[in-house]
Amino acid sequence: MTRQSNFIRPSDWSTTEYEEAFRLADLILQKPEEFSHSCEGKVLASLFFEPSTRTRLSFEAAFNRLGGRVIGFSDQGNTSTTKGESLSDTLRIIEGYVDLIVMRHFLEGAAFLGSQVLTKVPIINAGDGSHQHPTQTLTDLFTLHRYHKLDEDLTIGLCGDLKFGRTVHSLIEALEIFGGRNYVCISPKDLALPDHVKSKITKGKVTYVEDLSEVMGDLDVLYMTRVQKERFVSKQEYERLKDFYILDQEKMQRAKKDMIVMHPLPRVMEIEKSLDRDPRTVYFEQAHLGMYIRMSLMMRLLGVDK
Amino acid sequence: MTRQSNFIRPSDWSTTEYEEAFRLADLILQKPEEFSHSCEGKVLASLFFEPSTRTRLSFEAAFNRLGGRVIGFSDQGNTSTTKGESLSDTLRIIEGYVDLIVMRHFLEGAAFLGSQVLTKVPIINAGDGSHQHPTQTLTDLFTLHRYHKLDEDLTIGLCGDLKFGRTVHSLIEALEIFGGRNYVCISPKDLALPDHVKSKITKGKVTYVEDLSEVMGDLDVLYMTRVQKERFVSKQEYERLKDFYILDQEKMQRAKKDMIVMHPLPRVMEIEKSLDRDPRTVYFEQAHLGMYIRMSLMMRLLGVDK
Amino acid sequence: MTRQSNFIRPSDWSTTEYEEAFRLADLILQKPEEFSHSCEGKVLASLFFEPSTRTRLSFEAAFNRLGGRVIGFSDQGNTSTTKGESLSDTLRIIEGYVDLIVMRHFLEGAAFLGSQVLTKVPIINAGDGSHQHPTQTLTDLFTLHRYHKLDEDLTIGLCGDLKFGRTVHSLIEALEIFGGRNYVCISPKDLALPDHVKSKITKGKVTYVEDLSEVMGDLDVLYMTRVQKERFVSKQEYERLKDFYILDQEKMQRAKKDMIVMHPLPRVMEIEKSLDRDPRTVYFEQAHLGMYIRMSLMMRLLGVDK
Repeated sequence: MTRQSNFIRPSDWSTTEYEEAFRLADLILQKPEEFSHSCEGKVLASLFFEPSTRTRLSFEAAFNRLGGRVIGFSDQGNTSTTKGESLSDTLRIIEGYVDLIVMRHFLEGAAFLGSQVLTKVPIINAGDGSHQHPTQTLTDLFTLHRYHKLDEDLTIGLCGDLKFGRTVHSLIEALEIFGGRNYVCISPKDLALPDHVKSKITKGKVTYVEDLSEVMGDLDVLYMTRVQKERFVSKQEYERLKDFYILDQEKMQRAKKDMIVMHPLPRVMEIEKSLDRDPRTVYFEQAHLGMYIRMSLMMRLLGVDK
Repeated sequence: MTRQSNFIRPSDWSTTEYEEAFRLADLILQKPEEFSHSCEGKVLASLFFEPSTRTRLSFEAAFNRLGGRVIGFSDQGNTSTTKGESLSDTLRIIEGYVDLIVMRHFLEGAAFLGSQVLTKVPIINAGDGSHQHPTQTLTDLFTLHRYHKLDEDLTIGLCGDLKFGRTVHSLIEALEIFGGRNYVCISPKDLALPDHVKSKITKGKVTYVEDLSEVMGDLDVLYMTRVQKERFVSKQEYERLKDFYILDQEKMQRAKKDMIVMHPLPRVMEIEKSLDRDPRTVYFEQAHLGMYIRMSLMMRLLGVDK
Repeated sequence: MTRQSNFIRPSDWSTTEYEEAFRLADLILQKPEEFSHSCEGKVLASLFFEPSTRTRLSFEAAFNRLGGRVIGFSDQGNTSTTKGESLSDTLRIIEGYVDLIVMRHFLEGAAFLGSQVLTKVPIINAGDGSHQHPTQTLTDLFTLHRYHKLDEDLTIGLCGDLKFGRTVHSLIEALEIFGGRNYVCISPKDLALPDHVKSKITKGKVTYVEDLSEVMGDLDVLYMTRVQKERFVSKQEYERLKDFYILDQEKMQRAKKDMIVMHPLPRVMEIEKSLDRDPRTVYFEQAHLGMYIRMSLMMRLLGVDK
């Protein structure tokens, strides 16, 4: 197995690799039954050193739908690292049991370390601390691909906590690989896009606003994220601004007919539940598509075409 | 998927639906190998927001024996609800991954809520708080069906804590659908059948006694439940009564040759272990039959005949 | 199912039974694909009343690679024993769901108890407290079999904490079944082999040394174990001795070209990581072989040849 066959960072892939993965996922969506034996006889280790139910179930459903088998654990409680074993030893042992490893870890760089010590099987980063969550980014890009072509000149609103919002940072990083887009950053000044992310925007254009309402009509895509009260500088600031970042019926009326609302989920109160019935809110479909792109990803890392 | 294809309360089903489910379960028991691929390619989400090992393993073994695949979690520790996500959002996401959901939840009505928000896949109530546990009732009825015909005029002893014993309440409710039976309620006065259950007995006949020994000889079926010390009004009452509700060799000698002893389990000390060898004690077989009726139930909700 | 079809202690098996199990495991290693359906339609209960990730994943990967299905739990948190149910009741219920049980329990003799109460399915002891861990011994013997023939007259170094090291005790016990070997016990005097193990050595020869370096050149096999600081009588003793039991490049230079270094793992600091690249260190391969001998064991207990 060569190093390239791991999936650690969104930037590990070229546009070609993304497009091939999307094409395969499109095929699976079209005729799932034709892929129900693609990974028969293969075993996946689903290693969640910190819980992440949604991501774990998405991977495990995906691999089962390919006919593969899954073993693993859902939190660190049940791991031998408690006996003082190093992570690399644990991974070296487990690679002797399985064909593919999916790992979520609370430490930054854990998956990269894995890719360095593993010699027989590929590893997928299902999130390493607050650092990367590349299969969420893959899900987001695949959703864009399903609703708009990725070569379109899209205007994408990024709304909420853009300072700490890991998924937004990764999404921008990945979109730059595709030539960049028009990013409209919608956030309080104190929760604006950090410089290390800004510096990565070399192809796209960025504008900054404080109030979602202002720009609602311009957007082809609105990517919502959570805004946590405790992240505001003061209670007054929170009270002044919070409604700017809550998507409701009234704001939705200003939106284009074919715009889409995405959200990495979990959603708390930043999107009114009544909007779930609006065909333009696609976050549940987005989670659904995440399973198919993970099927595609795992097939590619295992080198199975069909 | 129509609302009816969920299984939330024992009263959701008519006698016909029960009888069809029993017939299918009988067939599976006869030739299990003929059903080992019935749910191939299907994925079950086994969502236990509170632990219930026996019920969970019964469902998971059942679905695996039908060739299906299982994902899920065994307690709330590993769920995104900890991030403040609503139960309905969690279920909306998971229905994008699977074909069927089995849910145990600590909140009353949780499964019913699920049946209201899910749009693509059926849901089975594996217990919602102290409210309902319909697949236990299904197991109890199927056991009766295997040992006696359900149209027989049976005398059924219900022994132990009839005030708080959820399984007894559900069993009576379900038996009333089948025209009722002769119920002999055997309990301390303070742990007698509550009025809201009595009021549901419109077809069957009920008698009340304090001591199991008195009625042992009249019973076709004895349904035992746990009696917890702390439920008695006083230590004296407990000491005076406890032996009335412990099944031992001596009481068993008064029983009919073809009567059966059932218990939802876990059993603590209300049945002497030595009686496990008595062919009339069928509680372990009852648990075994529970797996087959769950296979039947899941096949029916998925609309697979064979 | 007869009592013999359980696997509770290494001494349960004769040399013939070990050799047949090894022969089958050799076949599986050669052509795994030919066994990928051997346990199709069978269900394994993987019951870990205390966590042991490595052992659990090894069993679960093994059974999945045979086409079987796995249900179970990974720690006691999720078990009905919390409701005061006896272990034997729990096992009686679960045997109604499955074809084979693998159990790890924190209580000595738990697996033996299981073998007494189960009437339908075989049980494998995956470790009972500090008492036995027979499938680790099986793994160790199979590794010896793969690198040396078991009838060779081997000199085996046993290094580290030989007083509390359960795996060493079981290994010696098992090797005695094969006519014994030359055991070189390398440990501090205070952590020497206890008398109850010495007394079992009737066929092999034993010598005792304090320093690994002295004997390095004589060994065909070096079986390393952990030495815990707190096990030494004094800090001074620890400082004086610790280096004697740490395998490093320098000691490795004195070793034979074809000697092998084994370790039950987890390894903490008793073997320098740089030695992982030395072809003579086989502990990761040993873990890998453990999966195959478990496949062989489970096939034998289920009575499937192919």
